[in-house]
Amino acid sequence: MSNSLIIAGRDRTDKMYDWRQRLLAPSPTYRIGNRTIRFQTQFVWLLIVLGFVVLVFFYVKPSSSASKGSSSSYYESNYLSDSGNDGGTVSMQYNHTYPLSAPIVSNGIVNYKIAVIADMDTDSRIKASEEQWKSYLKHGFLSYNSRQDSVTVNWDTEDTVELTSFYSNKGRGMELSELIVFNGRLLTVDDRTGLVFEIIRDKMIPWVILADGDGTSSKAFKAEWATVKDEHLFVGSMGKEWTSSTGEFLSYDPMWVKRVSITGEIHHINWTNPYKALRKATGIDFPGYILHESGMWSHEMKKWMFLPRRCSKETYNDKVDEHKGCNLLIKADADFKKIEVVKIGEIKPTLGYSSFKFVPNTNDQVIVALKSEEVDGKTATYITVFRIDGKILLPDQKISATLKFEGLEFV
Amino acid sequence: MSNSLIIAGRDRTDKMYDWRQRLLAPSPTYRIGNRTIRFQTQFVWLLIVLGFVVLVFFYVKPSSSASKGSSSSYYESNYLSDSGNDGGTVSMQYNHTYPLSAPIVSNGIVNYKIAVIADMDTDSRIKASEEQWKSYLKHGFLSYNSRQDSVTVNWDTEDTVELTSFYSNKGRGMELSELIVFNGRLLTVDDRTGLVFEIIRDKMIPWVILADGDGTSSKAFKAEWATVKDEHLFVGSMGKEWTSSTGEFLSYDPMWVKRVSITGEIHHINWTNPYKALRKATGIDFPGYILHESGMWSHEMKKWMFLPRRCSKETYNDKVDEHKGCNLLIKADADFKKIEVVKIGEIKPTLGYSSFKFVPNTNDQVIVALKSEEVDGKTATYITVFRIDGKILLPDQKISATLKFEGLEFV
Repeated sequence: MSNSLIIAGRDRTDKMYDWRQRLLAPSPTYRIGNRTIRFQTQFVWLLIVLGFVVLVFFYVKPSSSASKGSSSSYYESNYLSDSGNDGGTVSMQYNHTYPLSAPIVSNGIVNYKIAVIADMDTDSRIKASEEQWKSYLKHGFLSYNSRQDSVTVNWDTEDTVELTSFYSNKGRGMELSELIVFNGRLLTVDDRTGLVFEIIRDKMIPWVILADGDGTSSKAFKAEWATVKDEHLFVGSMGKEWTSSTGEFLSYDPMWVKRVSITGEIHHINWTNPYKALRKATGIDFPGYILHESGMWSHEMKKWMFLPRRCSKETYNDKVDEHKGCNLLIKADADFKKIEVVKIGEIKPTLGYSSFKFVPNTNDQVIVALKSEEVDGKTATYITVFRIDGKILLPDQKISATLKFEGLEFV
Repeated sequence: MSNSLIIAGRDRTDKMYDWRQRLLAPSPTYRIGNRTIRFQTQFVWLLIVLGFVVLVFFYVKPSSSASKGSSSSYYESNYLSDSGNDGGTVSMQYNHTYPLSAPIVSNGIVNYKIAVIADMDTDSRIKASEEQWKSYLKHGFLSYNSRQDSVTVNWDTEDTVELTSFYSNKGRGMELSELIVFNGRLLTVDDRTGLVFEIIRDKMIPWVILADGDGTSSKAFKAEWATVKDEHLFVGSMGKEWTSSTGEFLSYDPMWVKRVSITGEIHHINWTNPYKALRKATGIDFPGYILHESGMWSHEMKKWMFLPRRCSKETYNDKVDEHKGCNLLIKADADFKKIEVVKIGEIKPTLGYSSFKFVPNTNDQVIVALKSEEVDGKTATYITVFRIDGKILLPDQKISATLKFEGLEFV
């Protein structure tokens, strides 16, 4: 036993000696057989080890720089397990859950849980407290019969949630204009404060704040639409030039788009050209305008889709604008070079789209949309479902004769 | 000419053939000389090329995932040159400029430009407009004579900037409690809205919003202190339990710290243990308390430093609290295991620290601090300079007999 151990030990020493000798010796030129092969094996091992070290270095580098602060302190690194909401690490995985609730299938009909969120404009202020603002989240079911290609929508009269918040800008707040599932979370955007909130039950949790234009403005971004593309949240505004109430050009600020990562990093993207391309495709040029309140990226078709709220060949005017409803679906490829315009039904001058989503499992072929009406201070909301080729599956159905709902989502 | 070309071509074909043959052939065992060495060289090249490909893959991976959205669209990738404020890419470099203005040296005296920012509490609301809030940024010079180890501070009576904003929470806003240079930008935090603003001239640009506690609260984080550590902005609150006005425990929310990256990613860190360790080192236990409004990470000394506003061995009480001023400097290493407490002058019961910074180029040995006074609704602010061993270089000097300044920075 001890003998063989010694031999083994000796053998190893010999090999090590041999190894060092190889490294120190000049490059072998005319060696024969095994020896050369052994050298080769050792050299390959050296390369593999070096390669491995370099790989480990590169693999560790990005995550270590991201958690630089935490690595130096026990409490900080420990916190990750403490925190219910760490706001994101670089290694965070996107949560693809969608819709948030699994649909219920019966007799070939798929029932999806949906929700709509209200933008009550100045009525959102709770008069009793003066310093609190509110909105409503209304729940319902969208039932899709794929065999008959028909849809029904029913509302849950008991399940309307009142949402409140103390955040405001210029005395206005909670004017929620979109509802969107992003990274497994239900988010909404306020077109007054520029805040993106997460909705947890009836709690409004501020997540990120969007400043207007290129992000160096002290004004809030008038957030109107939101969608998910490449695991990022895109938030858009009206997509038209900021003009005076009589249509004079003031700025391009509402033509910027915000791209937000799951960890809350915001990029400010100049969309003047994409928005102008969309407008041009409909045959409208400034001072004519298209006003957007909904937009979606179709992951299935790799296309942007927009259902404008207003389309007008004339200069903007506050009063006339209420009668410039639009019946267009605009489809654009990722770089806005190929743009197609489809008419959806007849124009109803006072109705315009305020939000839409693709019905799940239809390859983004079926759209459910909200239309809102705002005439002389009176508001109403309708829901409609159609195929992207223009075939209507559910004609305009009234949701509310008083409230304006501007966001819709599968929850 | 053409001949030699053909020969060269053939030669290459031969080599390629040779190469493939080597790969397909069983491992050579008894080859002689050059051939074996050539095989070895080729194998090494193969490994190098493979290694290079893997390295490139790992090097490119993090940055490509960060700009995933932008690579697919012309407009998005193009935007980077359009945007004045892109909110950060992963490859963004930290801007180490500090102080923001180069000091002016004359006769061995170094003159630094400084600024202080006001927290006017409920007086911040501009009564005329009702929906706008204000603060003041006051400028001055700190002159340090290193030979005599003496300091003078002078204020620029002409150069006070009025800052305004429309953002509010529960009807309050612009209660700015700290001033900090981070990534070459001048930032301030509002203890009412939880907003971190960038100050550009007299513009208040919202950058990130801090939610209370672990980040899942609908309430705003009561931001009181801010410092830079490892290229991250750390924002802290009072560092004591949230209690009722008579001292009953309500929550640990004010004992969380927010770590913000230069791209605006927020981590919520549970600092209950660090804060308790700091308190214990001063001989105080709950329901006794220490209330923090200033804290700095010393990069030079790798230490956290805190100058509490209040220290009390008794249960918190709104009224008594105004007379619990503190004269302690608490130094802690990065993991809060070694904590040292130094007395700075005598206690003045109504005075407590609200902000401090290290005087540049003193190896973090000299501190300039603000002390604020708040008795029966009347407020005042003082400035003082001392060495971290307790030697006072500038005794309390009144800045304002009416305003409370809670943030100080070298600008």
